[in-house]
Amino acid sequence: MGDSAIGGDNSQGTVAEEVSRIADLAKELQDSAASLISRNSQEESSLRQRALSLDSTIKNLLSSLASSRKKGNLDPKDAEKLEEELYRARYLLSEGDAASFLPTKSNGRFMRMFIGPINVRATRKDVQLKVKEEYNSFRDRTAILFLFFPSLLLLLRSRLWDGCLPALPVQLYQSWLLFLYTGLALRENILRVNGSDIRPWWIYHHYCAMAMALISLTWEIERQPDCAQKQLYNKSQTCLQRGVQLFLQWAIMQGVAMLLQNRYQRQRLYTRIALGKARRMDVVWGETAGVEGQLWLLCPILFILQGFEAVVGVLLLKTAVVGVISEWQGVTTVWQVVTCGILLIIMAVGNFANTVQTLVSKSRFKAKMKKGKSKQDLLQGSATKNL
Amino acid sequence: MGDSAIGGDNSQGTVAEEVSRIADLAKELQDSAASLISRNSQEESSLRQRALSLDSTIKNLLSSLASSRKKGNLDPKDAEKLEEELYRARYLLSEGDAASFLPTKSNGRFMRMFIGPINVRATRKDVQLKVKEEYNSFRDRTAILFLFFPSLLLLLRSRLWDGCLPALPVQLYQSWLLFLYTGLALRENILRVNGSDIRPWWIYHHYCAMAMALISLTWEIERQPDCAQKQLYNKSQTCLQRGVQLFLQWAIMQGVAMLLQNRYQRQRLYTRIALGKARRMDVVWGETAGVEGQLWLLCPILFILQGFEAVVGVLLLKTAVVGVISEWQGVTTVWQVVTCGILLIIMAVGNFANTVQTLVSKSRFKAKMKKGKSKQDLLQGSATKNL
Repeated sequence: MGDSAIGGDNSQGTVAEEVSRIADLAKELQDSAASLISRNSQEESSLRQRALSLDSTIKNLLSSLASSRKKGNLDPKDAEKLEEELYRARYLLSEGDAASFLPTKSNGRFMRMFIGPINVRATRKDVQLKVKEEYNSFRDRTAILFLFFPSLLLLLRSRLWDGCLPALPVQLYQSWLLFLYTGLALRENILRVNGSDIRPWWIYHHYCAMAMALISLTWEIERQPDCAQKQLYNKSQTCLQRGVQLFLQWAIMQGVAMLLQNRYQRQRLYTRIALGKARRMDVVWGETAGVEGQLWLLCPILFILQGFEAVVGVLLLKTAVVGVISEWQGVTTVWQVVTCGILLIIMAVGNFANTVQTLVSKSRFKAKMKKGKSKQDLLQGSATKNL
Repeated sequence: MGDSAIGGDNSQGTVAEEVSRIADLAKELQDSAASLISRNSQEESSLRQRALSLDSTIKNLLSSLASSRKKGNLDPKDAEKLEEELYRARYLLSEGDAASFLPTKSNGRFMRMFIGPINVRATRKDVQLKVKEEYNSFRDRTAILFLFFPSLLLLLRSRLWDGCLPALPVQLYQSWLLFLYTGLALRENILRVNGSDIRPWWIYHHYCAMAMALISLTWEIERQPDCAQKQLYNKSQTCLQRGVQLFLQWAIMQGVAMLLQNRYQRQRLYTRIALGKARRMDVVWGETAGVEGQLWLLCPILFILQGFEAVVGVLLLKTAVVGVISEWQGVTTVWQVVTCGILLIIMAVGNFANTVQTLVSKSRFKAKMKKGKSKQDLLQGSATKNL
């Protein structure tokens, strides 16, 4: 290692020269770096101000145009044309390079709790796209594991475990779910900071799922290695086992739906990018709009899943009632089962409401699109909010 | 809301002018933003190259100087002087504004798992310092809660719960620990990316602690509301309760030690910043070097804590053995108790080894400092690695 540029035979003078040259280089480099950084922060803050004032001017003009139109002070056609132009300007501002100088949402409470107020926003569009791409591939990997783990558990249950799920593998699976949902929630928060219009519900949904995974870790499915035997004598354990089993079946369906959704949404995103319609940071997990053919496959699956989710929730509640009535050995487990049941029902209802809302706004958007082709441009700015 | 700059009485012409002015402004802004971004990325990549090549040149020169010195080709005094100059150049490079253009550690596996490959490195030194400051205050808040929660649990145990810990509060505490250690591990990884020289052990330590919190969530402390009664008949439950109780007492001590450490390390950091000696991103959780007076208080406390941690670990292992012998009702809990015991012992040993290492390198550094004042400068570059 030791021998390099200057061998032992070089004269002391040359080495000394080299060293002093390096010291100069280091100083120069420090100076250029310092000047670049200070120049940048000046230029950036001026761009930030310009972007901000332009944004608010556009907003003011739009609202005054709308009120003028209502009062009949403006010819509707002219007003529409002006609005169109303003939307185009806003689109340029929010989608172009200047977008990185507009203030964004700050890290939410959840992010601050886990990683503090560190800046996770990428300035350059191509980096933002990489973040989004990585999120997509994370979702793909996730979907496959989401399919694989419960399938494995159910397979082992029928082949190896005599129709009974032991605690450890289920708890490992639940730990994985907890990690997974935490990761998803963090990543989606990061996307939000990077300008994605992800519906807040999908993030809340992951908070609920995190809570459920954490709670389900603390309940006891069975306590003895010979659970199949024991379950004959324990009605609530049988119920709980059935609840877990249903949950696993639901998870398998969920995995399939996730794979379909991912494929569909990636296609849709690329279509929309091609049309120049989308902010590319949009995340539309569970949303349903666009590529028609797949939509007719996806929608029913989503609704069935949501129904199934609610059923598992109700079943868990029933289990808890049975458990209380039959003086369940582990009474401490009742609240966990009840909470998980309620969380599942909340998630099912929320998912359903959000899917329906998306479909409704999609059909509204479509109707608008039919009314006039010229609106296509006009709606560019707001399309991403509705779709 | 509707009425603003342009009222209904303004002529259509003025509005149209305003709108086209805004469209022009948006285009201009887009152009300046695009040019700033492209100019920046060019200048940054050139700085990056310069910094990189300078760094490797310095390394090569240092190693060839060392080998020349060994071979006796250089006068030792001259060599020392040259080395000093090189260290100074390296310090300027790694601590000055150019530092942000040197390549850093990429996000580790743990970070990539949770938040993906998103860039969490702050370019500007003042932002990096804010990250560090925030981490310090997070640690402070943490230490107080670390003291508060177990104290509350132990208080309620003796006053309200008849000397017995029910499952739910303990599990809430364990969930909090899981969240806390995850947050600490993430934040320390972020600090590492931002150039902190945190000892890797402290991060591994938090991974161990995460695992322990997760595992302890799945064990069952007791299953009936009348645990005090039941424990009379269940030896392993009594043992487990004692284990948890000891763990809580250890946690209280840990909280006190954390508060002391935080105070001490912040002081030390400020001292070192004042001396221009520290990279300010250094995290020295558990490290013990510097402010002499407090060190003599801190060291014994740390060693006692580590001993206590190991004792709790051994006690948990004993509990598991008793559990197996007395045909414990919940045999599934045995592996959890064993794993937690082993993890505690690993953490205690690792903490001990790292504290001792820090003390040793500290005393070595001190010895060097005594040898010659001029070395103070020379050692600047490497001091932060050892301290």
